[in-house]
Amino acid sequence: MAEKTVGVAVLGCGTVGGGVVNILRHDHDMLLKRTGIDFQLRHVVVKDRSEYPPHANELPMSTDANAAIDDPASQIIIELIGGTSIAGTFIERALRLGKPVITANKSLLALRGPELFALARQHGACIAFEGSVGGGIPILDAVVRGLIANRIEAVLGIVNGTCNFILTKMTQNGWSYGQALKEAQELGFAEANPTLDVSGRDAAQKLAILASLAFNARLAESDIHVEGIDKLAVEEIRFAGEMGYVIKLLAIAQRSAGEQISLRVHPTLVHKDDVLADVGGPFNAISIYGHALGHALWYGRGAGRTPTASAVVADLVGVAMGATAAAFNQLRTWPDLTAPARVLPFDQLESRYYLRLMAKDEPGVLAQVTAALGAQSISLSSILQHEDGDGRNIPVVITTHLAREGAMQAALKQINALATITPPTICLRIVDQPREFGAG
Amino acid sequence: MAEKTVGVAVLGCGTVGGGVVNILRHDHDMLLKRTGIDFQLRHVVVKDRSEYPPHANELPMSTDANAAIDDPASQIIIELIGGTSIAGTFIERALRLGKPVITANKSLLALRGPELFALARQHGACIAFEGSVGGGIPILDAVVRGLIANRIEAVLGIVNGTCNFILTKMTQNGWSYGQALKEAQELGFAEANPTLDVSGRDAAQKLAILASLAFNARLAESDIHVEGIDKLAVEEIRFAGEMGYVIKLLAIAQRSAGEQISLRVHPTLVHKDDVLADVGGPFNAISIYGHALGHALWYGRGAGRTPTASAVVADLVGVAMGATAAAFNQLRTWPDLTAPARVLPFDQLESRYYLRLMAKDEPGVLAQVTAALGAQSISLSSILQHEDGDGRNIPVVITTHLAREGAMQAALKQINALATITPPTICLRIVDQPREFGAG
Repeated sequence: MAEKTVGVAVLGCGTVGGGVVNILRHDHDMLLKRTGIDFQLRHVVVKDRSEYPPHANELPMSTDANAAIDDPASQIIIELIGGTSIAGTFIERALRLGKPVITANKSLLALRGPELFALARQHGACIAFEGSVGGGIPILDAVVRGLIANRIEAVLGIVNGTCNFILTKMTQNGWSYGQALKEAQELGFAEANPTLDVSGRDAAQKLAILASLAFNARLAESDIHVEGIDKLAVEEIRFAGEMGYVIKLLAIAQRSAGEQISLRVHPTLVHKDDVLADVGGPFNAISIYGHALGHALWYGRGAGRTPTASAVVADLVGVAMGATAAAFNQLRTWPDLTAPARVLPFDQLESRYYLRLMAKDEPGVLAQVTAALGAQSISLSSILQHEDGDGRNIPVVITTHLAREGAMQAALKQINALATITPPTICLRIVDQPREFGAG
Repeated sequence: MAEKTVGVAVLGCGTVGGGVVNILRHDHDMLLKRTGIDFQLRHVVVKDRSEYPPHANELPMSTDANAAIDDPASQIIIELIGGTSIAGTFIERALRLGKPVITANKSLLALRGPELFALARQHGACIAFEGSVGGGIPILDAVVRGLIANRIEAVLGIVNGTCNFILTKMTQNGWSYGQALKEAQELGFAEANPTLDVSGRDAAQKLAILASLAFNARLAESDIHVEGIDKLAVEEIRFAGEMGYVIKLLAIAQRSAGEQISLRVHPTLVHKDDVLADVGGPFNAISIYGHALGHALWYGRGAGRTPTASAVVADLVGVAMGATAAAFNQLRTWPDLTAPARVLPFDQLESRYYLRLMAKDEPGVLAQVTAALGAQSISLSSILQHEDGDGRNIPVVITTHLAREGAMQAALKQINALATITPPTICLRIVDQPREFGAG
């Protein structure tokens, strides 16, 4: 319990980096009182000092990351630059010096996690990365330590706040994707170039990290089937709503028969009674199913300055007090120590489906469509057809019972080839979380 | 990462103890693979061997807790006897031998936590107690470590599954308290003697532990204002429902002006849009508000055999790999190291209120009631009065804006003294969680 001083170098002073610097400065005494550790900010490394206001001169700001990493007074290195190039170089440099690294860099970890973990181990260092998934929600620590007695069957949830903000606006205001994106950009919930978020890739990177820990298997972003929200029409949200569903971008990892894991990110219909349906705006929520715990859910701010900084500083305390190293050295569930995941081929996925067809308003069309589905042994759960089509092409919405993705794709090919159907037929997936006792 | 063997003694083989024994036996190899630790069940101590079926003879079962604790092969002691008498004696014995103790005993920790923590520290041991609050939800670890960078403003939630089951049944089926309790007992969600749960005491004990860690302050069950659900009439649930609320038993700890903490457990009206309103049956859900994280919520099974065992075994791994000791020795937020909480006197609590009066169906009654409230500067938010009274006494339901508890009690005294009112007037509290962006 003796007080000790720990020197910290923060690389990158953008949204999250700035938040970490703020906490280390303004909440220094609270942290000291709680931990007995005097965290000293030794370096704040930025690309261009002139981008920071004059009062930032109070900070030990520099542009030389290597010098900051090499400084013996920097005992812990916090990487918050992001991206997969120089961030990786700096992390490697720190690890080779045996210095623990804290990062929230999901892109880098999804790409090179196992390699960097192995490097850390080789040099007696460790990596902490709570901020990389779920922002301020301590979900990774829960998976690694809190649920270690659980064989995890499934992890699924809303892990991208930008997409959730856009979908919430489309749902609540009836806005188009473009309108909702514009609003998200104006309010700072989406970047000027939103591709990483709206394509689903950011969610896939987070799922790669989360599922790797949950299933004790090595996997990469490329193992995940990804569909974004950028082509989603507001009509789908409206029709889904009429049928009792809300559309969310879900990241889903699930154990299937034969110990394979299905991995996917896509717009998903969830029932209005599902707790995920109520998760609005920039919030995240992650469901986990364990054989001992059953269903549990974590909810909170999945991104942003102070929430993510909250996770990074928690990592800093964990590293400084040795708890992180204890887990890093003792547990064998880290991505460098586990075997590659056996990924379920996507065409073998079993799902329920939502189809929206544009059909000619003629007799017999529905018979042709259901015949195409029936030929693939896909059975219908519900059909929605309004009278108010444009006279020639009317939307027909179908939901199905469980079917194989491969069978659905084959049926869609046949349906889109029908003379009475104007392709493309929209195909989304439905996820039913088990209804919980008395909930909803 | 070398494999090591850790001998474990489990004291008590009831619901949770049996679950822990099951995991250690049936999931031994999964734990070994994940942790490199070979957990060996050395002793399972029970009160009466004859209560266990013959196949329990496979277990190292005995009735001598002292011998099990003293056995050098028992490196970690798991106390799952419960209660505040012999469980405490056994824990003390283990700690004096320097052996780490894992417990889920909320009654004991709420009563003697600081003393037992100090004893552990004195003998170089530690105490892990994740299972004592929130069953399988790793909420304590989140508060102690994951949110350590947060100044926590409030902790509130549903922490007693028995009460939540009963309230869910009363709400969904319109049952009386007695009917719902009977169903809970038949399904194993309530004990034969349900007093500890339905009185709110169990929730208060959990709140004492949780709030102590969240606010870094020493506090006991006796610091908490407690009202149970055992006197709640189904009429309240019905009237609350008409006004857009659901009644839940909430445990609430909140920082107030002057660094005081308000602490209470009582039936509470929460808005139907509040995420807590959807938490049904035996589930728990806990909201935490931190200055960096904002609002976050944890949801899952708050009790029961395997969920609680999940938390206990996670503690076992944490202790065995040294992470628990690292936090126990480094952090200063444990109840033996913090100052006594400054508890807000209950009459200074600010809350919104729900009142249900039984009033004579005469002119001027409402004027008398509102005058009594007005005299205490309590302003009304809504009034509900149906025509279908019994002719003489009709229920009048009033909700108020924020008022002080002391003022409300003074007003109630005056109201109950009115000739036109049949006491007692029912008084419940309303909690409005901030509406989150786009949620609900």
